[in-house]
Amino acid sequence: MKLVYLDNNATTKVAPEALEAMLPYLTEEYGNPSSIYDLAHKSNTAIKEAREVMADFLGAGDPKEIIFTSCGSESANTAVKGILEINRNKKHIITTKVEHPCVLNLYKDLEKKGYSVSWIDVDTNGDLDIGQLLESVTPDTALVSVMMANNETGTIYPVDKIAQAVKMQNPETKVFVDGVQAAGKIPLDLKNTKIDMFGISGHKFHAPKGIGALYVKSGTMLSPLIIGGHQERGKRAGTENVPYIVAMAAAAKLAKENMNDELTRVKALRDKLERGILSKIKNAVLNSKSKNRVPNTTNIGFQYVEGELILLHLNDEGICASSGSACTSGSLEPSHVLRAQGVPFTSLHGSIRFSLSRYTTQEDVDYTLEKLPAIIEKIVKISPFQKELKEIFK
Amino acid sequence: MKLVYLDNNATTKVAPEALEAMLPYLTEEYGNPSSIYDLAHKSNTAIKEAREVMADFLGAGDPKEIIFTSCGSESANTAVKGILEINRNKKHIITTKVEHPCVLNLYKDLEKKGYSVSWIDVDTNGDLDIGQLLESVTPDTALVSVMMANNETGTIYPVDKIAQAVKMQNPETKVFVDGVQAAGKIPLDLKNTKIDMFGISGHKFHAPKGIGALYVKSGTMLSPLIIGGHQERGKRAGTENVPYIVAMAAAAKLAKENMNDELTRVKALRDKLERGILSKIKNAVLNSKSKNRVPNTTNIGFQYVEGELILLHLNDEGICASSGSACTSGSLEPSHVLRAQGVPFTSLHGSIRFSLSRYTTQEDVDYTLEKLPAIIEKIVKISPFQKELKEIFK
Repeated sequence: MKLVYLDNNATTKVAPEALEAMLPYLTEEYGNPSSIYDLAHKSNTAIKEAREVMADFLGAGDPKEIIFTSCGSESANTAVKGILEINRNKKHIITTKVEHPCVLNLYKDLEKKGYSVSWIDVDTNGDLDIGQLLESVTPDTALVSVMMANNETGTIYPVDKIAQAVKMQNPETKVFVDGVQAAGKIPLDLKNTKIDMFGISGHKFHAPKGIGALYVKSGTMLSPLIIGGHQERGKRAGTENVPYIVAMAAAAKLAKENMNDELTRVKALRDKLERGILSKIKNAVLNSKSKNRVPNTTNIGFQYVEGELILLHLNDEGICASSGSACTSGSLEPSHVLRAQGVPFTSLHGSIRFSLSRYTTQEDVDYTLEKLPAIIEKIVKISPFQKELKEIFK
Repeated sequence: MKLVYLDNNATTKVAPEALEAMLPYLTEEYGNPSSIYDLAHKSNTAIKEAREVMADFLGAGDPKEIIFTSCGSESANTAVKGILEINRNKKHIITTKVEHPCVLNLYKDLEKKGYSVSWIDVDTNGDLDIGQLLESVTPDTALVSVMMANNETGTIYPVDKIAQAVKMQNPETKVFVDGVQAAGKIPLDLKNTKIDMFGISGHKFHAPKGIGALYVKSGTMLSPLIIGGHQERGKRAGTENVPYIVAMAAAAKLAKENMNDELTRVKALRDKLERGILSKIKNAVLNSKSKNRVPNTTNIGFQYVEGELILLHLNDEGICASSGSACTSGSLEPSHVLRAQGVPFTSLHGSIRFSLSRYTTQEDVDYTLEKLPAIIEKIVKISPFQKELKEIFK
C-alpha cells in the first residue's frame, strides 16, 4: 500500500541505524547500569557515551548538563516545575500564546495554582511580539518560556536573543525553551546562549517514542520531578532506559550529520510542495508566513472547507498529514496557534500541516501535488460556501 | 563467557517474545497513536489491547484503571504526589522502614515539605508490625503506602489485609502499594482488594527498562504528575511509548502463563540454592526469614566478610548477584531493610541477594553452589575477624 508520510512533526519513523544501535541492549546487554558486575558495565558506558553525543548534538558545554527523560512532556514538566519549586517566592511566568499544548496546559494549571502568567502575542506572520515579552519582565518573573520552533507553522522564535534580553532585564529569571520541534531540524549551540533549560523529544528526530532529554545549564538548581534513586545525578530517578538512550544518541548523531540535507534538500522539497499547492489550488493560502522557519514544515489553509475532511481524503490516497498537533487531534477546536496569528475563520478550519523529513522523496511531493488538487476540488463542491468559493475560483 | 544471572530483582533479560512483539512498532508501524490516519490506527489499537492485557495481569476490574508510565519510580511519584495534591488538607502519611529507596526518598522529601510520616517497623523475620501500622491511622492520614514484596529479602507484606483494615479505620485514607517486586512473581487480583493504587515496572518481569504502569482504582481522583496532552485519559501526558507498551503486555502475558513455573520450579531452584549455601558455608545465615516470600529471592548474610568483595569474586566467575538495591549500589551504606529487621553488624555488611527468574537453570544453581564456598573461604582468610571466624568454622 502507498504511504506518503508528511506528518513528521507528529512523530517520525525510527532510523534503522537507531534501531540497530539499541538492539544489543534489548538482548544480551541487559545489565542494570547501576549494578557493579561486568554485565552492567557496558550499559553504564553506553549511557555515558550517549550523554556525550547528546551534549554535542545540543551544543552543550558539558555532558553533565544532559538529563535523560521519557519524553518531551516530561522534559517540560521537569524543567518548569523543577525551577519553580526552587524559586518559590516568585509567582510570575511569561510564555507565548502559541506554545505546544503540553506546555500550554502546564501553565494553565499553574495559573489555577496561583501563578500569574503573561501570554505573549504573535503577529499575522506568526512572529513573536518581543517588545511585549520584554516589557512583561518584572522582579517577580520566575520563568520565561518560549518554544524554539512552532510545531504547527514551523516558525522559529529568536530564543537566543530573547534569553539574552530577559537576563538583562532580570538576571534571576530563568529561561526554558521547548526545543522539541527544533532539534534535528536546525543547528543548536546552547553553550553560547543564556538559555537555562532546553527540552527535546527523541521521536521527533527518528528515535523511538518514549525517550527525551532536558538540557540544564551548569549551576542551575532544579528540584526533581521524579524522586527516588540516584540516577541522572539525582535529577531524575528510575532505572535508565538504556536501549532508547542509545537509540536517541544514534538518531541525534545522524540528524547532525544530515543537517545540511535538512537545510537544503528537505527545504527544497518543502518549498516545492508549498509553491505547488499555492499555485495549483486557488483557495489555498499560506499560514506559515514568517521568514524564520524550520526547513521541513508548511501550514496551508484551504478556504471554506473542513480540514478533517481533507485529511480523510488524503488518507484514502495513503498520504499522512495533520490539522494541528497530534495531542489535540480528535478535538474539533481550531488551532490556537493559527488563531493567535489571526488566521480568519474562512481558512482556519481548513488548515493543514505538511511536515517532511530526510526520508521524504521527490516522488512523495510529486504524488501529493498530483492528488491534492482533485481532493480539494471534490470537497469544495460540497462546501456550504458556494458563493464565496465561486468568487475565489472564477 | 560464562554468565549466571542471579540479580533478577535488579533487572531482567528482555523476553524474546516481548522483543518480537515490539519490533513492528520500531519499524513500519510508527504512527502517532493520536493521529487520525490509518498508519496511526494500528498503534492506537495496540495500546488498547495492551491495556486489556495489563488489566488482566493485575486483576484489575477495568482496563481504564491502567495508566502507562515510564518506570516504577514514575508510577510511585504519580500515585503519591497525585493523591496528596488532591487531598491537600491531610498531612499524614504512613509507610514502612523497608520500602524501596525510590519510595523512601519520596517520603523523606515530603517530610521536609511539611508532611508527618509514620515509619512502620518490621520484626527480626522481616514481617511488618501491622498493629503499629493500624494504630497510626488518624483522621489526618492521607495515605498508607506499603510495598507488596520487598526487593532485598523477598518478604511479602499482606497489603490486601492492610488495605482492608486501614479503610475500616479511615475510609478516606488512600492506599498505595509498590508492586514492583510482586508483579510477575505472585498472582495478583486487585479488583478484589481495597488497594487504590498499585505501581509496577516492566523491566522486573522481562519487559525493557523504561516502561511501567500504575493501577488506579476507578473513582480515585489523581492529579497528573506530567501535565500536557490528553494521553492516558489526562492522567499522564506524552506521546505513548507504543513499542514498550506492547512489549510489556507481551511480557505480562508470558509471566501470567509461567506463574506456575515461578511458584514451583523457580521456587525449588531458589530453595536448593539457599539450602546449599546454608549447609555448605558455615558463616552463612539466612536474612530472608519470613514465611511469606516471593519464590525467586533469597538474602543470605556471610558473617565477618565484606559483601562487595563477595560480589567482585562472584563476578570473576561470571555470577551476577547484589548486595542491596541497584539504586543504592555503589554507596557502601549497609542495607536499610536488613538494619530495620535487626540483622547484626556481623552479617549486615556481608549480605548478598540472589534473585532468580524463569530463565534460571539447574546448572546455574549448581555452578553457583560449586563456586561460592571457595570464594567465601578465600575472603574469610583476609578478614580482620579471624578469632570470631575460627569460632564459627571450628
